[in-house]
Amino acid sequence: VLAGERLDPPPIWIMRQAGRYLPEYRALRARARNFLDFCYAPALASEAALQPLRRFGFDAAILFSDILTIPDALGRKVQFDNGGGPRLAPLIDEPRWRFDEPERAVQRLAPVYEAVERTRSALDNDLTLIGFAGAPWTIACYMLQGEGGEKDVARRAAYERANDIDLLLTVLAETIAQHLALQVQFGADCLQIFESWAQGLPNALFERLVVTPTKQITGRLRSLGVTAPVIGFPRAATETQLALYARETGVTALSLDTAADPRTLQKRLGLPLQGNLDPQLLTIGGAALQNGVRETLAAFSAGPHIFNLGHGITPDADPENVAAMVRYVKGA
Amino acid sequence: VLAGERLDPPPIWIMRQAGRYLPEYRALRARARNFLDFCYAPALASEAALQPLRRFGFDAAILFSDILTIPDALGRKVQFDNGGGPRLAPLIDEPRWRFDEPERAVQRLAPVYEAVERTRSALDNDLTLIGFAGAPWTIACYMLQGEGGEKDVARRAAYERANDIDLLLTVLAETIAQHLALQVQFGADCLQIFESWAQGLPNALFERLVVTPTKQITGRLRSLGVTAPVIGFPRAATETQLALYARETGVTALSLDTAADPRTLQKRLGLPLQGNLDPQLLTIGGAALQNGVRETLAAFSAGPHIFNLGHGITPDADPENVAAMVRYVKGA
Repeated sequence: VLAGERLDPPPIWIMRQAGRYLPEYRALRARARNFLDFCYAPALASEAALQPLRRFGFDAAILFSDILTIPDALGRKVQFDNGGGPRLAPLIDEPRWRFDEPERAVQRLAPVYEAVERTRSALDNDLTLIGFAGAPWTIACYMLQGEGGEKDVARRAAYERANDIDLLLTVLAETIAQHLALQVQFGADCLQIFESWAQGLPNALFERLVVTPTKQITGRLRSLGVTAPVIGFPRAATETQLALYARETGVTALSLDTAADPRTLQKRLGLPLQGNLDPQLLTIGGAALQNGVRETLAAFSAGPHIFNLGHGITPDADPENVAAMVRYVKGA
Repeated sequence: VLAGERLDPPPIWIMRQAGRYLPEYRALRARARNFLDFCYAPALASEAALQPLRRFGFDAAILFSDILTIPDALGRKVQFDNGGGPRLAPLIDEPRWRFDEPERAVQRLAPVYEAVERTRSALDNDLTLIGFAGAPWTIACYMLQGEGGEKDVARRAAYERANDIDLLLTVLAETIAQHLALQVQFGADCLQIFESWAQGLPNALFERLVVTPTKQITGRLRSLGVTAPVIGFPRAATETQLALYARETGVTALSLDTAADPRTLQKRLGLPLQGNLDPQLLTIGGAALQNGVRETLAAFSAGPHIFNLGHGITPDADPENVAAMVRYVKGA
């Protein structure tokens, strides 16, 4: 599909398919002290990535890791509170910003590449392994603010400390490119870049903070000889911004969020698309789920499509509903 | 402008122009025990609405009130914690939903209409008074969840308790229509409907939860003989959804959020537009503000335009920057 071919039925995987909605994941997770330790334990991380494939007929596994391994590797300590979101020391409070070299950072991420290798070697040959990273702006938001939530602090910094922010994004783009290249080297077949916080940016900022750094990543990947396809996911970007992103960043395909209109965008973007069932339907199930799957399949039916959700599956989703979704897609 | 005429320079007002960034507002606010009491005190509310017009050359005042007066009037007690957001008893926890009659609810809002009357009578004849209300879905989200933030609970209810939700939206649409009609009767010249939580809805839900109830409001207003223009503000809706909203709801004009592209939408929507300077620029000021104003004016230059922000002004904005923005717009 990423080569531009349409398959019927479409291949399927779902964002956060390895995660808290699965009892076997919760049992596995209990074997590490904290979430980052879990990500850095190749045996645990690769087992987590494989669990949903054993249970459901997904066509791809995705590396089990977290987008915040990047700031962690750059020397910005990340803490995952139990229950709460991740926390970092907010960069915005510091007058001068210093980071370790990208080369040294990715050396620290050796356990991640070992997890890639283990996952790939345990996976059937006809199944795909997806590597991934957070996009520079999304990671920068966490680093600047120290936590998730409203992005006003980060957006203001983009105006007020423009040079610092552009330098930060360049450091992140280079580190992310090396990180993704190593994932491919260790066995990832394709890559996804998660821009979770593309939302609410004026066009000029979207171009500067999202499009330019993403283009740097794909350009750097190509210069490193990496030819693996790249799926971009600029969540909640406007249609105008998605069109710019599709045209300028060099990504192979786009993942669409829950609100995006596949019919409009298939025509407008001209790239293979992934998405975009409402994840709430995996909690609800029943006829609503069946209708949702049917509508999603129909909405993407005019072009190359990878079936997925519009956002990550939620912890309260029912695994039975996930199984039903896969049946509906495969039986279509 | 709302009659479809382009004015140069465009008229200007800004969302939350009466508010915490103004020292005179903070002093006035201290005279009421809590925020709802302040909204229900016509002398205080009308004074708050007039303050920004005395200081800046705005072309319109907007009623000083809150979108949560509607659930309050329907018998759902609303509390504004100091510093935190509003809180209500979450409707989602209750098996059966009961509300007071719309007619009785708007009777309770008599102090709001008195605030409209006082504001209008203190306002120069050539200045506009804008009445407003929250849209049904946005108010329903607060009522269902009891607070702001992630809208998953409300969206899930839209699938799982579809009949209850549709009935709630109908009650809200009727109450809001009567509320807006009374504002016009007491002196409002035009109206704005704030759909702050249009974001992240699949198209089918957007149509059901946003478009249909908004259409009910405008239809009811017309049947009540109200001819005042209505500005719709479905914040963070996609372009496809904005096009549907513009075509179906019967609103006169649309207000655009910070990320929306005025050039694309002026062509696509064919209605007068309002917006959409990034409110962060009113904290930052300087050349960034001047450039932002210039770009905003240019982006809307092909059609009828009301200058505004893409979102409400933030409490840390500098009044000097607001004055500079007005000068730039008026001098353009």
